[in-house]
Amino acid sequence: MRAPDATDVPAPDAAAAAAARERLASLATPPGALGRLGELAVWWAGVRGVPVPPAPRRVDLHVVAGDHGVVARGVSAFPAAVTPLMVRAFLDGGAAATVLARQLGVHVHTHDLAVDTDWPPGTDPALTAHKVRRGSGSIDTDDALTPEETDAALAAGAALADASVDAGADLLLVGDMGIGNTTPAAALVCALLDGDPAVLTGRGTGVDGDALARKREVVTAAVTRARDAHGDDPRRLLGGLGGADLAAMAGLCARAARRRTPVLLDGVVVTAAALAAERAAPGSAAWWAAGHRSAEPAHSPALVALGLDPLLDLGMRLGEGSGALAALPLLSSAATLLAETALLADVLPG
Amino acid sequence: MRAPDATDVPAPDAAAAAAARERLASLATPPGALGRLGELAVWWAGVRGVPVPPAPRRVDLHVVAGDHGVVARGVSAFPAAVTPLMVRAFLDGGAAATVLARQLGVHVHTHDLAVDTDWPPGTDPALTAHKVRRGSGSIDTDDALTPEETDAALAAGAALADASVDAGADLLLVGDMGIGNTTPAAALVCALLDGDPAVLTGRGTGVDGDALARKREVVTAAVTRARDAHGDDPRRLLGGLGGADLAAMAGLCARAARRRTPVLLDGVVVTAAALAAERAAPGSAAWWAAGHRSAEPAHSPALVALGLDPLLDLGMRLGEGSGALAALPLLSSAATLLAETALLADVLPG
Repeated sequence: MRAPDATDVPAPDAAAAAAARERLASLATPPGALGRLGELAVWWAGVRGVPVPPAPRRVDLHVVAGDHGVVARGVSAFPAAVTPLMVRAFLDGGAAATVLARQLGVHVHTHDLAVDTDWPPGTDPALTAHKVRRGSGSIDTDDALTPEETDAALAAGAALADASVDAGADLLLVGDMGIGNTTPAAALVCALLDGDPAVLTGRGTGVDGDALARKREVVTAAVTRARDAHGDDPRRLLGGLGGADLAAMAGLCARAARRRTPVLLDGVVVTAAALAAERAAPGSAAWWAAGHRSAEPAHSPALVALGLDPLLDLGMRLGEGSGALAALPLLSSAATLLAETALLADVLPG
Repeated sequence: MRAPDATDVPAPDAAAAAAARERLASLATPPGALGRLGELAVWWAGVRGVPVPPAPRRVDLHVVAGDHGVVARGVSAFPAAVTPLMVRAFLDGGAAATVLARQLGVHVHTHDLAVDTDWPPGTDPALTAHKVRRGSGSIDTDDALTPEETDAALAAGAALADASVDAGADLLLVGDMGIGNTTPAAALVCALLDGDPAVLTGRGTGVDGDALARKREVVTAAVTRARDAHGDDPRRLLGGLGGADLAAMAGLCARAARRRTPVLLDGVVVTAAALAAERAAPGSAAWWAAGHRSAEPAHSPALVALGLDPLLDLGMRLGEGSGALAALPLLSSAATLLAETALLADVLPG
């Protein structure tokens, strides 16, 4: 992810989108009757660059895992030791997102960017091919990453996007896994949007009472510290508040846009990273759609800032890519409706 | 559909639902993190009668078509002659709902209950096997159906449910097709809920201005007339305001509940019919879920009265079963998540 450069991010294909909109209006349905599904089909035509694109055929989900030093401050209901256990569940196919992916024919790629563990011999080396470090600095007092680590994580995310695009993926999904990761996500959204940590810090995996109050204090301290140190530079804020997992997600989303490949976003962690990516490379968000609205309070303002209206609003707050996966069939339905519904002219007598 | 009888409608399996809820709480996800998908999985366990039911395997969509005499009053943007043309599009597989059904592996059954046409020789006789009449009385001045026609339509709907259940369907979807059918739907909801026609009458296929004002006047006149004639008897109101299509939908939904078979509801027309069915046979709604919230204003109060919270809210207003079909993958996802996600106890070290 480089500094903003208007010539850097291509725009979706406006002619393809316009042709899709025209076809949508000519289907054997009342005008607008498909609602958001119709709008989604038009977006899909633009990002696929053809007026009547097929439904997604090869979809890659990248689950990006990392630990967060701030967990030591007591901001999560689970200990950091759960992160590697859940990563193992991804590799074994028992994590919720892998269950959905299997059902939907989505390819899952799990990446340890910053899990605070050493894996036993025999673990698939692909898991750690892009590992930047173990954990991150505790963001209330320190930057999450050094500038070098931030660069490495951004480049890792870009490499993940490149690998999928080069393998023929027509849609990317991004998921997160990491105990404590809603804390850096909330901090990043607050820093980028000048938001109030008291409002935008959520319950994550289920903290309340003292732990939630502590989490708010931590986010407040982190945002104040990072804004003082880094201003509103999105890349520096990713390193200051995010962590290697969030920086890699940002790199992935930005590179996908540059590769003219659409991304279906998930919950607050992925969306916080995407918000930083859009700030660094304006125009990228045109390539993204929002799968769902999470129950985390920082998610909605981040979506609004990206100009994205989520497809689902089911009170989910799992992460992992689960909200993007749950929404994926709607995109397939939208594309199929545009392609296969009869035209009104063919239904009405000549 | 008989008169209310509390012993008539079985309840979903509370033990299966409780076991599903227990399993849901033991999955390797934070408590409640699956949001509505978790609740949907618990409902599915109850209506399927087993703690860990498979995703829907045989799903039947019944599209119930009919014309409405009130169209002569100018309440629709399309002429009644479009109804048989769209029915033909269903048979040809070009209607939007048939496109979605094909994508999702759903069996479509199209039924002419009251289309104002005679079909040419060679038309599949199954289409008209349950035909009650052509069109309906103009509800602002006359009952839509005679009591005998109402009985026949209710029985036809019950027969459709029986045929699907006997063929092994584990989920039924109901769709509508008929120019003008949001007028009887709005009238039925207003009559059953004592609602205000000025608020609950919607644009349907796209009327506005004078046509919308006329539609509101027609609904107001119809509700006043039918309430005077029939009080709040749901069966009489179905015949007075609905039409053979809506009465058949009501019969189908009610019989499905008695056959312990779940139904995924669609938009305002199907939901209006379901509301009458629930009033006549209280407890039936426990077997139903709501696929989506339509843009038609009478839909939301009908859903609230049924205690149903829709899965999707995408501004769709097509009918045909399209909203139920769009939501179907969420039900499959919910069931698969409950069945296949690892248990937390299996992820955490012993």
